Amino acid sequence: MLAEIITIGDEILIGQVVDTNSAWMAQQLNNAGIRVKQISSVSDDRQHILTALAEAAERADIIFITGGLGPTKDDITKKTLAEYFGVGMVENKAALNNVLKIFEKYKRPLLAVNRLQAEVPENCEVIINNNGTAPGMWFNHNGKIYVSMPGVPFEMMYMMEEQVIPKIKTLFKLPVIIHKTILTVGEGESFLAERIADIEDSLPPHIKLAYLPKLGQVRLRLSGYGENESTLRKEVDKYASKIIERVGDFVVAEGDIPIEKAILNYMTEKGLTLSVAESCTGGYLSHLLTQHAGSSKVFFGGAISYSYELKESMLGVKNETLWQYGAVSEQTVSEMVEGARLNFKSDYAIAVTGIAGPDGGLPDKPVGTVWIAVASAKKMIAKKFTFGTKRHQNIERSATMAFFMLNNLLKDDEK
Amino acid sequence: MLAEIITIGDEILIGQVVDTNSAWMAQQLNNAGIRVKQISSVSDDRQHILTALAEAAERADIIFITGGLGPTKDDITKKTLAEYFGVGMVENKAALNNVLKIFEKYKRPLLAVNRLQAEVPENCEVIINNNGTAPGMWFNHNGKIYVSMPGVPFEMMYMMEEQVIPKIKTLFKLPVIIHKTILTVGEGESFLAERIADIEDSLPPHIKLAYLPKLGQVRLRLSGYGENESTLRKEVDKYASKIIERVGDFVVAEGDIPIEKAILNYMTEKGLTLSVAESCTGGYLSHLLTQHAGSSKVFFGGAISYSYELKESMLGVKNETLWQYGAVSEQTVSEMVEGARLNFKSDYAIAVTGIAGPDGGLPDKPVGTVWIAVASAKKMIAKKFTFGTKRHQNIERSATMAFFMLNNLLKDDEK
Repeated sequence: MLAEIITIGDEILIGQVVDTNSAWMAQQLNNAGIRVKQISSVSDDRQHILTALAEAAERADIIFITGGLGPTKDDITKKTLAEYFGVGMVENKAALNNVLKIFEKYKRPLLAVNRLQAEVPENCEVIINNNGTAPGMWFNHNGKIYVSMPGVPFEMMYMMEEQVIPKIKTLFKLPVIIHKTILTVGEGESFLAERIADIEDSLPPHIKLAYLPKLGQVRLRLSGYGENESTLRKEVDKYASKIIERVGDFVVAEGDIPIEKAILNYMTEKGLTLSVAESCTGGYLSHLLTQHAGSSKVFFGGAISYSYELKESMLGVKNETLWQYGAVSEQTVSEMVEGARLNFKSDYAIAVTGIAGPDGGLPDKPVGTVWIAVASAKKMIAKKFTFGTKRHQNIERSATMAFFMLNNLLKDDEK
Repeated sequence: MLAEIITIGDEILIGQVVDTNSAWMAQQLNNAGIRVKQISSVSDDRQHILTALAEAAERADIIFITGGLGPTKDDITKKTLAEYFGVGMVENKAALNNVLKIFEKYKRPLLAVNRLQAEVPENCEVIINNNGTAPGMWFNHNGKIYVSMPGVPFEMMYMMEEQVIPKIKTLFKLPVIIHKTILTVGEGESFLAERIADIEDSLPPHIKLAYLPKLGQVRLRLSGYGENESTLRKEVDKYASKIIERVGDFVVAEGDIPIEKAILNYMTEKGLTLSVAESCTGGYLSHLLTQHAGSSKVFFGGAISYSYELKESMLGVKNETLWQYGAVSEQTVSEMVEGARLNFKSDYAIAVTGIAGPDGGLPDKPVGTVWIAVASAKKMIAKKFTFGTKRHQNIERSATMAFFMLNNLLKDDEK
């Protein structure tokens, strides 16, 4: 089954917004066994949308359209779809009830434009939007399916996950696609590839290996295509085990989860607790941990100590340490991590202090210099890193390496 | 002048990679006065590329192609372009010299596949790649221009900035495009639209208004198209001022910047400082602030107080307050914000405590209940919000509303 994705909206075409929706949708569709043939971004222009729909219908079986469903004048997707299908518009009762419910909840008066959100082309099946007022729409026209959804990412995502993909699965027999992801940290893509070259060469044609690198991390993804789910799963698992055996030192998670989630899972299981002392990561470690439900079982919190004063008052870093060695030093990071562990009374602690950039570099400590420490009651490890000159990447890399160090300390302490 | 962007490569179509190249290119082209008509991602498939090229040539004057220029077998862009133009391949001397230079620099042996990188369709003008071995190519065919570049972001970026855009500017007289963005918080898209309907209706055809909503925020973007930059800028500014006058209460920034950056700019200018006490946002406020270079001038840091204990020890929240009113209460958030402001010695403080979900709701405090407080030496304001059931959105909305409340307090204190 072939799909196409059309995103409607000028914001993508002027580069104001990066189209993350399409990549997310492509991933979901692939997981469900549907291949995406083309992704197109077109403008809020009637004729352009009509042409894009017709072109997509020539190539694909199912066409996903996002965007242009808002209540304002520049949102023309709905009436253009009606024109494309040659039908009129009708007010849909379920969609109207959904709009009314939302306005009632927020105690806002319903404007005429809001009521218009319940109007849809008469040949559509409405997909109720549980997170917003614009309904999704499902069309079946000349043997092709068209699914129109809002461009607001979370509205589209819930609609896809909860309604659209399940509906496609009940209507069509899709091939089985099984993905298995192994998350590695601390080794480059080409070096990993070299180490597992013989395993990769031995893969049968229906199992593919992809390398997905991201700052400091590489995900290895095995994708198997077949008919029988349990046979295929066994086969994919067999190759995954071989890879894990070979590069196990760098493996931090099996499954497509981020490193901090793997740590949270492990620490929850063991009943362990964690706190942090963040300087240059500025809350990013804490944010990564607390975005996961249930993180409060493990994570107590910690200090964002951007200033010298807060390093002293919250973490008990000694004033003379800061003045003698500087905020970015082995001495300071060591006192930060012990301060966090003891003051916040957690089993483990992480501390990060560094120069994220673009300014603030010193001759002996250039931008990108970062000290990271992890500690338990048994052991404390501090390491210096020299990343690059880009602020965002330095914050991201620091977080990845901090979690990698904690992961290794947890493994060590278990021995 | 109309452009189209075609990205070639399966990694985008399976959702492995988000296409950030196209957004960047679109931005550059817009700034240069070139409108992007469509962005398409197609697979590494000969026929599919040929069709995409032909379709783009029907709509646009200039077609930008990225990807598929590597040395491996799945990179077929070059020979497909030669087929499209009906020409043969030749070895280009300048491109070969560039390849040789790079291999010499890294002292690597030149393989046959590497030498092939210097082969290009015979009708092209080579664009030397100063950052890699794959040359860019410029074609002029039947009155349309085609520019093929590598998909590696920084190779493409330097090529665009240093060679392609300057070349286009010398060959064509381009119109002026001016964008002006106004960031609003606290009012829905349809309500904003209603308030400024008459201003929107009065816009001349060469100035367009777009609404870009995101959790709790709406950016209003005016785009003007014209010949004379200063006249056009004045005209766009005039309409922007009218809109700001009308919906000023909700305007937090002029320019395409996020709310926390607007706050940092203002506080930096006034020499004001900020600290935070984050419970349910778990570091997200701090992360948003510290991702911006120079934030340390304003932001001291703060407490991530996920547990009861840390609310007491770091912020001085009274034990009886927590037990009598609970962690999510007006009393607790008030003590948190004052604790942060006084303990961390900043002019302003923000505190957030709530139930992010999906678990942890109580009969009288359902998931999504969030208390936010902001404080200065003059004033403290605490407000209760009832968001939804989704953890990520609750964190995101809490952050937006916290910054909005701080923004209003800053305005108030200035009076």
